[in-house]
Formats: sequence, C-alpha cells, structure tokens
Amino acid sequence: MTYSVAVSGASGYAGGEILRLLAAHPDIEIRTVTAHSNAGQPLIDHQPHLRSLAHLTLEDTTPEILAGHDIVFLALPHGQSAQYTDALADVPLVIDAGADHRLTSADAWAQFYGGAFSEPWSYGVPELPLAGGATQRSALAGATRIAAPGCNASTVALSLAPGVAAGVIDASDIVTVLAVGPSGAGKSLKTNLLASEILGSANPYAVGGTHRHIPEIRQSLVAAGAAGEVKISFTPVLVPMARGILATSTAPLAPGVTDAQIRDAWQAAYGDETFVQLLPEGQFPRTADVLGANTALLGLAIDRAANRVVVVAAVDNLVKGTAGAAIQSMNIALGLPEATGLTVNGVAP
Amino acid sequence: MTYSVAVSGASGYAGGEILRLLAAHPDIEIRTVTAHSNAGQPLIDHQPHLRSLAHLTLEDTTPEILAGHDIVFLALPHGQSAQYTDALADVPLVIDAGADHRLTSADAWAQFYGGAFSEPWSYGVPELPLAGGATQRSALAGATRIAAPGCNASTVALSLAPGVAAGVIDASDIVTVLAVGPSGAGKSLKTNLLASEILGSANPYAVGGTHRHIPEIRQSLVAAGAAGEVKISFTPVLVPMARGILATSTAPLAPGVTDAQIRDAWQAAYGDETFVQLLPEGQFPRTADVLGANTALLGLAIDRAANRVVVVAAVDNLVKGTAGAAIQSMNIALGLPEATGLTVNGVAP
Amino acid sequence: MTYSVAVSGASGYAGGEILRLLAAHPDIEIRTVTAHSNAGQPLIDHQPHLRSLAHLTLEDTTPEILAGHDIVFLALPHGQSAQYTDALADVPLVIDAGADHRLTSADAWAQFYGGAFSEPWSYGVPELPLAGGATQRSALAGATRIAAPGCNASTVALSLAPGVAAGVIDASDIVTVLAVGPSGAGKSLKTNLLASEILGSANPYAVGGTHRHIPEIRQSLVAAGAAGEVKISFTPVLVPMARGILATSTAPLAPGVTDAQIRDAWQAAYGDETFVQLLPEGQFPRTADVLGANTALLGLAIDRAANRVVVVAAVDNLVKGTAGAAIQSMNIALGLPEATGLTVNGVAP
Amino acid sequence: MTYSVAVSGASGYAGGEILRLLAAHPDIEIRTVTAHSNAGQPLIDHQPHLRSLAHLTLEDTTPEILAGHDIVFLALPHGQSAQYTDALADVPLVIDAGADHRLTSADAWAQFYGGAFSEPWSYGVPELPLAGGATQRSALAGATRIAAPGCNASTVALSLAPGVAAGVIDASDIVTVLAVGPSGAGKSLKTNLLASEILGSANPYAVGGTHRHIPEIRQSLVAAGAAGEVKISFTPVLVPMARGILATSTAPLAPGVTDAQIRDAWQAAYGDETFVQLLPEGQFPRTADVLGANTALLGLAIDRAANRVVVVAAVDNLVKGTAGAAIQSMNIALGLPEATGLTVNGVAP
Repeated sequence: MTYSVAVSGASGYAGGEILRLLAAHPDIEIRTVTAHSNAGQPLIDHQPHLRSLAHLTLEDTTPEILAGHDIVFLALPHGQSAQYTDALADVPLVIDAGADHRLTSADAWAQFYGGAFSEPWSYGVPELPLAGGATQRSALAGATRIAAPGCNASTVALSLAPGVAAGVIDASDIVTVLAVGPSGAGKSLKTNLLASEILGSANPYAVGGTHRHIPEIRQSLVAAGAAGEVKISFTPVLVPMARGILATSTAPLAPGVTDAQIRDAWQAAYGDETFVQLLPEGQFPRTADVLGANTALLGLAIDRAANRVVVVAAVDNLVKGTAGAAIQSMNIALGLPEATGLTVNGVAP
Repeated sequence: MTYSVAVSGASGYAGGEILRLLAAHPDIEIRTVTAHSNAGQPLIDHQPHLRSLAHLTLEDTTPEILAGHDIVFLALPHGQSAQYTDALADVPLVIDAGADHRLTSADAWAQFYGGAFSEPWSYGVPELPLAGGATQRSALAGATRIAAPGCNASTVALSLAPGVAAGVIDASDIVTVLAVGPSGAGKSLKTNLLASEILGSANPYAVGGTHRHIPEIRQSLVAAGAAGEVKISFTPVLVPMARGILATSTAPLAPGVTDAQIRDAWQAAYGDETFVQLLPEGQFPRTADVLGANTALLGLAIDRAANRVVVVAAVDNLVKGTAGAAIQSMNIALGLPEATGLTVNGVAP
Repeated sequence: MTYSVAVSGASGYAGGEILRLLAAHPDIEIRTVTAHSNAGQPLIDHQPHLRSLAHLTLEDTTPEILAGHDIVFLALPHGQSAQYTDALADVPLVIDAGADHRLTSADAWAQFYGGAFSEPWSYGVPELPLAGGATQRSALAGATRIAAPGCNASTVALSLAPGVAAGVIDASDIVTVLAVGPSGAGKSLKTNLLASEILGSANPYAVGGTHRHIPEIRQSLVAAGAAGEVKISFTPVLVPMARGILATSTAPLAPGVTDAQIRDAWQAAYGDETFVQLLPEGQFPRTADVLGANTALLGLAIDRAANRVVVVAAVDNLVKGTAGAAIQSMNIALGLPEATGLTVNGVAP
Repeated sequence: MTYSVAVSGASGYAGGEILRLLAAHPDIEIRTVTAHSNAGQPLIDHQPHLRSLAHLTLEDTTPEILAGHDIVFLALPHGQSAQYTDALADVPLVIDAGADHRLTSADAWAQFYGGAFSEPWSYGVPELPLAGGATQRSALAGATRIAAPGCNASTVALSLAPGVAAGVIDASDIVTVLAVGPSGAGKSLKTNLLASEILGSANPYAVGGTHRHIPEIRQSLVAAGAAGEVKISFTPVLVPMARGILATSTAPLAPGVTDAQIRDAWQAAYGDETFVQLLPEGQFPRTADVLGANTALLGLAIDRAANRVVVVAAVDNLVKGTAGAAIQSMNIALGLPEATGLTVNGVAP
C-alpha cells in the first residue's frame, strides 16, 4: 500500500531532509507540506534542491491540514508539538523530529528545556542496546507515536551504549566533544550562524554542561544498563561543514577488562546492523563518508595509558541524526523492510 | 641593532609563517632562506603571499649557508636538526621550530619519535606557569638555543597548566579533543591532506594515544607542578579550515575547590599577559578571532554535574602555535620588547 | 536482466562515483573493480563511503580482467584507454569516463592533449541539442561505445547550445568563467590540490585558453548548429567546495531577437527534460542544489545593457558532469528507463 | 602628530576592519566607536578579534558623538551618510566606506540605488590610471572628503583600466565574473548568507546587470579614457570563503595590438606601485595570497583564439576593497607615507 504523508516544518532543514528521503521511498505519497511564515509559497522556493517536489505548495501548519493523513511528521521548534497532539489523535502514525517527546524525565525537561512536559514517545534509535540484550527496535515495532532523536544525543549514545550495556566502561565520567555542522542549528537567522562567522573558524557553544542533548544521552545510557550515576562532559564545536557530526566520546575502562572484551561489546551490539557499523581496529570514520546516508560509522581505540576507551563516530546529523532515524523508525513501525528508502553509502568526496 | 637571520625550510608552511612575521619585525634583516628540493628557485614561487620578500632566492639547506648569521631558524622535519648543531655552534641564537629539542625525556622521545635523542633546548612557551610561581619566560631570557613548541601541545598545556599549578584540577585524567586545520600537518603530499578529502568533512587522526604531542603536554604539566602521574586522552580532528586549533580540554576538579578558586587560578596566571587571555565567564573563543595573531584565547567553564573543568582554547597553529611562539621567544632571548613584530588582533571574519 | 559490470580506476574519484551510482542501480551487478597501484587492497580502504561494496577487492587493471563483462567502465587518465580497446572488442558496452574518445578532431586532440588520437565514441550528453532539432540522445540509443563528457565542457555546452541551435546568440565571442571544486582534478598528489592551499581561497588555473575542455565545448556548439567560428574565453577557478561546477556563460545576443525568443530557445530545448532544467525567470541555481544529483540547473538572464545573455549553470561535476552522464547514457544505450539509478534531487544544505 | 578618530558602523564587518587596520597605525588614536542597535555594549562583544580595543564601548551613531574628531570614518548602509554631512562640516577629514559619495552621475545613482543623490567625494583608489597619464592619487592629496570604493568595483576597475587608458582593449564588451566571499555582504541576517547555505556551494546573485557596482566600474573606466560606451556583463558568485574577491575580467583586444603592447600597458601603470602588482607572465593570483593585506594581485593572459585579454585579480574585499583603500587614501590625504599601517604580505595558507 501507499501511505499518505504530511510534513510540517517543510521549509526548514529537518523538514527538507525528511522530504528528500520520503521522495525516494517507494511506499510513500507526500501529499501535504506545511510551514508557518512561508505558507502559500511554492516548496521549491525554500527547498530548491527538491526538484521532484516542485509541484507542492506550502500550506499553513494547522491541526486541520495535518489531520487525515496516514503519517504526519512534525519538524517544529521544541514546545510546539503538543498543541497538535489531540487534533492528530486519529492519525495512525505521528513522528516528531523535535524534542518534545524524547525525554522520560519531567525534571530533566524542566531543567534543560522548561515549559510544559509532554509524555515520551517511542524513541527512534532502533540499534540502541538496552539492558538485558534487546534493542530499542523492539519498542518501535508497531509504534504509533515516535520521537526522532536529537542528532548529537543519538550519536553519542550509539557510541557508548554497547560498552555500558556490557559493563566494560564506566559511565560516571564520560567526556565527549563533537565537531558539528551548522545545519543542526536549523535555518535560524542568528549572527553566529552566518557564513562569515563560521567559514575558516571553529566555534564552540553550549560549553559547560548546558546543551539540551545531555539528558537525552544520559537517559539512553541508563536504558542500556548503566550502573550508578551517568555523568557527561559535553562540548559541541561548530566547524565549517554544512552537515555532519564527528563525535569523540571517551569513558574510563572498567577495572580488569581485556581489549578483546571491550571490542567484543561493540562488535556484538552492531555486528548484524546495516546502519551502525564498527570499523576494523585502527580505522576511524570521517563525516564525508556518511554524507546523505543513514549510516553511523564508529571507530574504537583503547588507550591504556589514559585508561579510556575512545569512540569516534561519524553521522550525518540530518539523516541518521534526524530524518533518516525518523524514516527508519517509521519503516519498523509499519512493518516495512527497515532500510526502505534509505542508503548506506555516503556521498564522497 | 639589526639582526641578520637565516630561515631553513622556507618553502614550507612553518617556514613561511616565520618569514611573514619576521618581515614585519623592525629589528630583523632576513638575509638567507633555504630549502632542500626547491633550492635555486625564487621564494615567491613557493610563498606567493610574501610580496615583500620577492627578491629572495631559496638556497640549499647546508650548515655552511646557515652559519654566519646572528639568528638561525630551523623549520625542518623532526630528526633533521641535529646534523646542523655542530656547524651552527658559533651562531648566537638558534631556534628550532621542529620537535628535536622539545622533550626532556629520552624515553618519551624513543616511544613517540624514535631515532637519536637530542638534548632539550629552552622551551618556547613564555607564559607557561611553572611550579613555584615562575613562568617559562624566565628560562628564555638570554637563551641561545630555543625549541619552539608543538602547536597542539602548547595549546593544551596553556589551557590546563594554571589549574595544575594551583592544584585545583587533577591531571591524572585529562581528556582533550582538538579541531585542527590541515596546515599543521605541513605542505605534505598525502592523500588525506587533499582538499577533496577535507572539504565538508571532519577527519580524526592519531586516535588512541599515539600523537607525538602527548609527551610534550605531559612534560609541561609536570613542570607546572602536577602531583602524580599525568594521563591524557588526546584526539585531534582535522576540520575544513586552513589554520587554527580549537582545543577542548577537560580535567576533574580537585576535591573541595570553589568556583572562585578555579577561575582565580587562570586569572592569576594570565591576567597580566598580552598574548594569553582568559575570556570573561560565559564567553568562549573562536579560531577566527586569533587568525594571524600571536594570541591564545581561553574560555573556562566549571561543569559541576560532570565534575570537570572545561577549557576551550583558540590558537593559530602557525602563529602562537609555532612561528609566533618562536619570535616571541626570540624577543625575550634578545632582550627586545616581547611583542615586537607580533599582533594581538586576529583577522576576522 | 542483470548486467555484469567492471569498473577500472575504481580507487579514484570518478571511479568511486560510478560505483556509488551503480550500487543503487537495480539492473547492475558490480562484479569487478580494478586499479593500478592499489591492486590487491580492499576497495573500502580507498572508498570508505561505499559501505555496500565493502566485500570487493581491487584487482589489477588489465585487459584480461576487464574482459568478459557485459559493461566496462574506464575511468583512467587520458591516453590510457586505447590500449584496452582491442582486448575489450567483445564487451557489448564500454563507457570511457576519460577524454580519449570525446573529440572528433585529430587536430584539436593534438593541440590540447597530444599523443595518439583515438576515434570518437558516442558522446554522453543526451540532452544536448543538435542542429536540425534532434538531441544527442538519438546517438546514444543502442550505442556500444560511449564517451562520458568532460564535466566543465558538458556544463558549458548545455548552457549555451539551445541559444546557438535557435540562432538567438552569437557563438563567436563566448566568455565563460567556472567556479569548480577540486574533485574534478582527481585524487592527484599535487601541492595546489592540498586542503591548506584551497581552503579559504579562490585559485584560478588554466587561464588564457589552455584548458582541455575548450575544444570539446566548441565541438558541441558546432554540432548544435553554430554558424561561423566558435570562440570561447574559458577560465576555471578552484573554490573551496569538494564538488560542484557553477558556470557563468555569456554570449552576445543575435541582432533583433526578443527576450521571449531567447527564453523560448532554452525552454523548448529542455522543457521536457528530467535532468536539465531551466529555472523560472529571475532565479539562478546553486551547486548545493544538485549535489549528488544528476541534475543540471540553468538560470538565464538577458542583459540588454551589456547586450549579452548570461546563463548560470549548476552541476555536480562527479554526477551529471561524469558518472551520472555515463550511467544515464548507459541506460539509453541499453534501452532502460533513462533515469534508472539516478536521482534528480540534490543533497542540501 | 596623532590624529583622533571616530568610526561609525563599528560593530559591522567594514567597521571592524577599519578598526583592525587603524589599531596598527602609528599616527592614529581610536577615540570613539559607534553603532546603532548595539550602542552601549562593549566593542569586543561584536569584534572579539580586536583584543587591543577591548577597552572601547560602542556609542550611539549621532552627529554630536562623531563630531570633534580629526578624522571620521562612516561605515553605514547606503543612503545614511548624507544626514551626517552638515554636522561633520568642521571635521577635517571624513571617509565614507559606504556608497553614498562614489558616483558622479545622478542618473546612475537613481537607476542602481535610488533615493537622494549626494555629491561625489574623492574616490579612494589611488593607483587607478586616469586619462592623460595621472592616477587617482593626485585627487586624494589633501582631500578632505573621501569615498572608499566598492570592493568589486575597484577590483574590476584596477584590472582593466590600464588597458583602457592605453587603448589596447575595447571597453564596449567587458565580461567579468567574480568569486566573492560573503563578508562583502555585511553582517546581515539573511537566509542566503547563513553558513549552511554557503558551505559547500557556489551561489550566484545579482545576475544580469543589476549589481550596484556596475556604474562605479563604468565611471572609473571612463575616467581612464574609455572611448565610446562602456558595457559590462557583471556576475558575482558567492563562494565558501569568508573574505576575498577573485575577479576574472575579460575584454576584446583592440585591433592590431601586439602582446608586448598589451602587457606593457599594465606594467607601465603598476610597475612602481606597492599595493597593485602585476604577476609575471603565466602566473595568476589566489585570494589567500592577499588575505589581510592591502594588495591587489593581477595576472594577465592574452587569449588570441578568443581575441580577449583575461585579467585575474585577487583582492581582500575588506582590506584593499574597503578598509585598506580608506586608510591608504587617508594617508595620502594627510601627507603620511602611503603604506603606513598597511601590509603588503597576505596571511597564507
């Protein structure tokens, strides 16, 4: 069957990437695209790369316009999804690319976001190891409400969860630093996102424990079975590439573990996965290798002198970090082959 | 007086930057430039930005040609400086921009570089705090043999040494991740340094404790008074900017220290410095702000949830990281005003 | 049916892009990949973004290894294809991504390339208008030997051929300037292709009429019906993006033509095309809009004050400029739907 | 003596560059910096690279605050300078970095800018050849009101004026295409200037004869002695570098001129200049070579097949294109050595 779809936030970067991927999905009909301030304009004026969707016009983002589809994607600023929840009650599948339904802790929401807390939906990172041996995939089969992950959060969680689940690393002193492209910040008119500010420069932001993806990582690592408190030093750095996350995540080694035990933890978690791949020993990924692809590539080093595992992960923030995660989760929810409409090969160089 | 200077390795990036800075130095006459494979060619063919030096021709790098100057700069691959030591015995001041004379430990040299160990020279990071309250500047006054620092090493050492010296952080579990531009790797014909490989991508290298700047950082932090073993997880990531280092360095907080004590440690160390500046609380530097300048800008956050201090440092790898450090050290050694020929303002945007 | 394919030059940029596209083509089995100096190594070591082809090993590029496939792609430096011609006589379809079989004029070959001239093959730019109303597509149906175009050449030819064919512009004084990414120069170890040289800089090359794509453009415009001599001032400028060509091509207006006649010429040529699209009046394309796509986007302005038409074209040099053109031509030659395995939507931002 | 200076528009890119250069000028005291919306804030918050000016606070841009200095720099959006003219009547030297006083033709102003026309001031491109053998320098000696040039306009005018003045090229069919960095568009919050839009892409704008620098070029070439109408096809292309203009300008050769005559025209015009340099035959400049410098580098090719001269010029749009031109002109007006506070060497790589 073909599923009818509406995409809100269609003039933004996340919305545009959802559309790019859906346009290549054989089971989807993109029926409706909506936006707030740009309603009434051709989609192609805001997404000039989506040539196959040149016939679509942006409509207003209202519950009435979004209702009546088989699937609705919400790509809205955080705090805005809740107002559509009731009106979309009859929509079989709603996928939120925003933050509103990711966190299970109202306290964490209050601390990092503020405003009304919304109930958590099924978290859209299928490969995430859970304590006890299952993966998050099990929570997505048949799901009707899905929260796509934060791009940085899922990248770091995928990087470290296997070690946490296997008990070979200590989650109480994680340090992660991420080189990220500005598209993750959305199509926002802010001075610090201007090309002149970012070209030729590396610019840190949200330094010192304030980034909103921190509680989301903590939640995933707790779900993976972390014993004791999860502590994360998290620093993102904007670098001059439109897309991509290169996350370097480190954690102390658990006492007495061998190198083989460590590597086996990741190999066991991802050895059968299509979209999360552990590179051979001594190899590390580049973001170019996953550009446009739904792939998370991980390289792992064991630094005995520093007593830390180092996991370097490369992800396209708009694909595996957002839109690809959403569509992979949609495929699982609908019972479609999980890779439908997604590619594992990046566009490089 | 005017000092006559010879610069070897003048066709490379480090040599070129030494020349760019010397060309603006009022007390220097650049008399001789040398290179290996490009000897006989005009300097301007290899450094087309150095318009004021268009009259110079590259000579061969031999002891005879380098001798007879007041000052000689060596900008050679590691392991090559030693062969010139004897021949340059009569040169009043020799400054090595390479690695050969940085390390005090023959073991560390053997482990990270290999080959014959050379005696350490005065280490060219004037602002580096030393145990007991002095700075490295004291070792440079009147020096006749100076080792310019490794760019990443000095950036990280300057980031953390004040906290180590003051005893407010724990040097036994440092984690540092650096976004670096490819000019730090030199003008080397390697596939991974091609523009097509680096544009639009973040590429890690030397992951897992193998980078040669690790023992150099350790040495500086020991000199700053680190109690116990210094352990460093160090990961550099190539990002698409020609120049610049954005180092995010974290270390556990010492038990019981207050926020004020922490911040005071850095403020006390650098409050009177021209070229190393601590930004106000809540501000963090960008590499663009120090492009072309001899300035290291530091931003400091105290993340109590992670129990770590986070220091973000921005440095131009070719200036404060290499050539500027060399010339600032030269000024000190010669008794000239320390900032002569150097600028504190970056070229931005 | 499924066609078996061999790709030579598989460790380079053009070869890699051919493989990326073929991997998404439903009628193709990639059986053999070859390279010269890297033979014996896993393909994935040289093309780490091609995750779905991780099982392939590079073999040596020999006639014996390439023979015996349904289709052979040659992605070799110019002058090297001829040696395989005889050995591949029994291969039903050979597509050369190199220059050897593009030019019809032995004189032009001698002037711009030198060495032995090879006979021209069917030129792989299907949408190119020909004098008399046909397109180059007609020459590709059933073709057994295809020459994929030069990326700059096809971009400029597609930009201006409709106007030449319709007689609304004068081909005797064309000026074209192209902003191009370095991937068009291949994975060559040359100083001027290093990231440090290209980041933050715009670098012209082949200025003054020496670029090898000039005779190829001339040939296409003659085929489109140019009356009189075709003269082209052609200047390419390397800019800091891995991929992409943004060609600004101008030509004098023919006497007496109206704006509508001019615009109609392009509209008539491309109005029914999938992969070559004329944007609405007042709109101009960006290379990001065609990244990874087989699309050439054209924007057209009529500058009466300068008495010139200005056509700005955006193309991904590795797709529509090379590998996509090859596969689109292959589809035509084999009688497959022309767009099989190709996408019209770019990856942006 | 030391001149007191006020700089308006000090939070923008042009104002920031004026300040960066003035901070290195030995005869200048920067006393006042002003801005509109950011008045009351520390300058360093908006220009974090200007470390030596961290003591300055932005004041409001009013006639009262600007008055009373020896020199006032206006770096305001076009149309805003006129309101300060009367109030600054007693200021000995006023330099406008904006467009208001560049054009001598009210008609051209009306066509390209609109609004009230202001009288032209001394045009700040000292090296520009004038008909009759003088240069624009003569008009700047002792000037009290100076209009700094448009960055693209002065780059193209410097590229072609020697040929026009010497009569070796035909100014009636000029074609120029410029690769430009986004800083030329100012610190404006526009979607098309966001980093995500510009990274990895080449984006044309103002295509087809609408750019405001066209009449300014025409005016300069008429001043250089152009016989007959000057026609210019002008296309700027935004490329992913913060700064820089790489202008490729072509014009038909005058009948019968020899190669030597052509080259001599440029050599005669610039052979004695410090900041405008003609490269040796066969060499062409890169924007990196002039980054941060007040240098315009020109490369010249004679393409007999196309019957055109091709001049490629590299300029830093914020220095020689704007702030450096202003300060060089200021030096001339004040009778200071022309190069005071300016550098000829670029910051590369």
